[in-house]
Amino acid sequence: MADEKLPTRAEDFSEWYNQLVLKAQLADYAPVRGCMIVRPYGWALWENIQGALDRRFKATGHQNVAFPLFIPKSFIEKEKHHVEGFSPELAVVTIGGGEELAEPLVVRPTSETIIGHMWSKWIQSYRDLPVLMNQWNSVVRWELRTKLFLRTLEFYWQEGHTAHATRDEAVEETRQMLDAYADFAINDAAIPVIPGAKSDAEKFAGADVTYSIEAMMGDGKALQAGTSHFLGQNFAQAFDVKYLDQNGAQQYCWTTSWGLSTRFIGAIIMVHGDDQGLLLPPKLAPTQVVIVPIFKTDEEKADVLKTAKELKAQLVKANLRVTLDEREGFSPGWKFNDWEMRGVPVRVELGPKDVTKQAVVLARRDKPGKEGKVSAPLADLACTIEKLLADIHQSMFDKALTFRRSKTLEAQTYDEFKKAVETGFAYSYWCGNGTCEEKIKEETRATMRCIPLDQTAVLGHPASATARTCVYCGQPAKERAIFARAY
Amino acid sequence: MADEKLPTRAEDFSEWYNQLVLKAQLADYAPVRGCMIVRPYGWALWENIQGALDRRFKATGHQNVAFPLFIPKSFIEKEKHHVEGFSPELAVVTIGGGEELAEPLVVRPTSETIIGHMWSKWIQSYRDLPVLMNQWNSVVRWELRTKLFLRTLEFYWQEGHTAHATRDEAVEETRQMLDAYADFAINDAAIPVIPGAKSDAEKFAGADVTYSIEAMMGDGKALQAGTSHFLGQNFAQAFDVKYLDQNGAQQYCWTTSWGLSTRFIGAIIMVHGDDQGLLLPPKLAPTQVVIVPIFKTDEEKADVLKTAKELKAQLVKANLRVTLDEREGFSPGWKFNDWEMRGVPVRVELGPKDVTKQAVVLARRDKPGKEGKVSAPLADLACTIEKLLADIHQSMFDKALTFRRSKTLEAQTYDEFKKAVETGFAYSYWCGNGTCEEKIKEETRATMRCIPLDQTAVLGHPASATARTCVYCGQPAKERAIFARAY
Repeated sequence: MADEKLPTRAEDFSEWYNQLVLKAQLADYAPVRGCMIVRPYGWALWENIQGALDRRFKATGHQNVAFPLFIPKSFIEKEKHHVEGFSPELAVVTIGGGEELAEPLVVRPTSETIIGHMWSKWIQSYRDLPVLMNQWNSVVRWELRTKLFLRTLEFYWQEGHTAHATRDEAVEETRQMLDAYADFAINDAAIPVIPGAKSDAEKFAGADVTYSIEAMMGDGKALQAGTSHFLGQNFAQAFDVKYLDQNGAQQYCWTTSWGLSTRFIGAIIMVHGDDQGLLLPPKLAPTQVVIVPIFKTDEEKADVLKTAKELKAQLVKANLRVTLDEREGFSPGWKFNDWEMRGVPVRVELGPKDVTKQAVVLARRDKPGKEGKVSAPLADLACTIEKLLADIHQSMFDKALTFRRSKTLEAQTYDEFKKAVETGFAYSYWCGNGTCEEKIKEETRATMRCIPLDQTAVLGHPASATARTCVYCGQPAKERAIFARAY
Repeated sequence: MADEKLPTRAEDFSEWYNQLVLKAQLADYAPVRGCMIVRPYGWALWENIQGALDRRFKATGHQNVAFPLFIPKSFIEKEKHHVEGFSPELAVVTIGGGEELAEPLVVRPTSETIIGHMWSKWIQSYRDLPVLMNQWNSVVRWELRTKLFLRTLEFYWQEGHTAHATRDEAVEETRQMLDAYADFAINDAAIPVIPGAKSDAEKFAGADVTYSIEAMMGDGKALQAGTSHFLGQNFAQAFDVKYLDQNGAQQYCWTTSWGLSTRFIGAIIMVHGDDQGLLLPPKLAPTQVVIVPIFKTDEEKADVLKTAKELKAQLVKANLRVTLDEREGFSPGWKFNDWEMRGVPVRVELGPKDVTKQAVVLARRDKPGKEGKVSAPLADLACTIEKLLADIHQSMFDKALTFRRSKTLEAQTYDEFKKAVETGFAYSYWCGNGTCEEKIKEETRATMRCIPLDQTAVLGHPASATARTCVYCGQPAKERAIFARAY
């Protein structure tokens, strides 16, 4: 609740985050190490994220399915990079129904293997392709250092899995889903993201190419907010996923997978939050509008609550998500703070004078104090608020983009580079060599986040420098990459 | 697909079920013993079930949450009936991140224990009550004999959990959610169910009272389709869930839990299915209307497909779930059979003559042959189909109720009883004694399904007999119970 103050972001960003997640009741620590409980407010936010993504998946022809939680241990071992990547992180069931199991079962860290196994049974001919699937579930990876939403042993996500007849079609699917994530981040979460390709060192265990969307958090660090993998024929070969083509020849399928998880909630908190607490993007906020009634006498109370209820009905009818705060024993000021901390985009203040004037005061969460307040007539308030929410969305996006650009430096020298990653992103030419990447990581703790697909969009203008040489080794380079310390 | 014939229900009901689930592509066997894969058609059905229930939960003030998959083994051992009931069925993680765990983790069989643990932290005073939570997830119980949807190692469900200040309020909640399940079964799934109380032998491990909704399958056997438990203070005491009441005294909470699972899909299959395949209730069917275009020449094809697409758009606009079957290389007759097998409630047949007449033939899945066919004008077809779907729903419900009543015998003697449970339900006075219940089970394989809350609604009339004596021991009895062989 609003009684204890948060540390400011400048004082201790990490502690600000931890306390805010608990205080806003988004999540709590579970009694199992590294696991979290997503509380009603956090889960309602996740449900809105799910809805926004699921619409996009279904509109592009994907169907939801459910594969089992358990995977035979031998499956994980069939794809050589996959087993290397995931073996150290597995939770293993060795006892079932009181008996030792002949083959241990792995709690899924991701489902490429078991899906590959089933596809080898279901897919016979080119007529069965493409197969476009998605599932909403939780997966388990035995992480040692955990943080609510950002890195937990069990986390919630969706994993899309598709199989195609041709390489081109699979590559196109990989990019289409990356675009869907970027579109969601920008248009639903008001988060400017950089879609790009990962380096070999950072790609998914078993992928030929991994793409991601990268976002800058409020402390200048990077967060990978969604990934889309072109898996080539790696899993198709490991699991014998073949089809008969139009000429009667057996061919391996080309597959993809892509995922976005509850870690995205961490991104929303760290991109938009401020020292007062959360600021939730209007399209995803569980409560978009909170009505706080203000009164002193019983007569005023009756009048105000009557109007407040009518107003709520008007807004709900317009499909707005509205809370009327009727809690007893709390002052309006306390309620203002509480809802600010919880990040509700618009507050409606309604007192006896407002009832008389048939008007209300609207307060924007994104603009503190008088600047964000405006008086509006009760008539047609739903329409006024809809416009206001759209405006808040745009302001949030613009602010985050301006912030990111202000903290992204076109570092040309290694000295500039080292300075850049202290406070934000370095956007530098890189030779593409893994050795440089590793040295940079050792020396600066910054990792290669991605090679932006649109090299100009990162800063809104082409490269300022003319020299195309690797910021570390000085060798010729073709493209610029984002380097940053990351969550 | 529609090429291989199903066994008839009369020949082999169990095999009819198994083959239909596979053939309609609702689910498949996983490579892990006892687990299933829910395929797109099955999951779309489950999503509609989820939607129908979730609306009811939210309308009654419940909020969705997510508690972890893993539960410390010691938690399960804190409530004595709970541990007895669930210990033999647990899957246990003993290895995490390559190391033996100090305390093994149980994969949740249900979440009362970990929720109780968290409530003891979150609930302080009467102001925090009631707590009304629900979660959609999967749980694991190590079953030895499994059957797709009906009994699987891992299954999908929702588990509701609530905490209250008073006994009365918790009892009321238990009954409210039982009513919600019955309302869903009747009004969305067209399944007549009998809400009632379980015997002590059949109740949930840790409950004071378990209520269930019981349905009769097409072979006369019973299926428990949803349960609602009044947990008294059992879990509150085991996990120290206390609150400060208005007088400043510490009190234990009263709690409930309630669940409905993917086994309900098994009920839909076995209540409504026939020898041609599935018959899905209109409100839950993933596809409510399938349009099958009929043509011979290319010119006819162009005409018919143009009208078919316009028609589809008209129906989609009216929020109907529509599939236009444009598959090449299959005859209309083959498609009719295929969609009948998949249980789509209404088929629209559209040929060149129909285009000329601006009319279509509508075929009801629930009435085979000419009886179920009617011609309807294209204009305002959405409205015609909406009415037809409502009529199909009602017919399906009526048929299932008539069937159940025809196979429910008011058995007064034990001989009548034994005969009744060969083909359906025995509805008999029972003394309430566990010994009689156990003897009956041993001798007839029939179990006590429930004591119906409304004793008259089962057959639509009061008891025919006047003697109120236990069908097994002859001692005086107060109420009648349903006995049946069960899934």
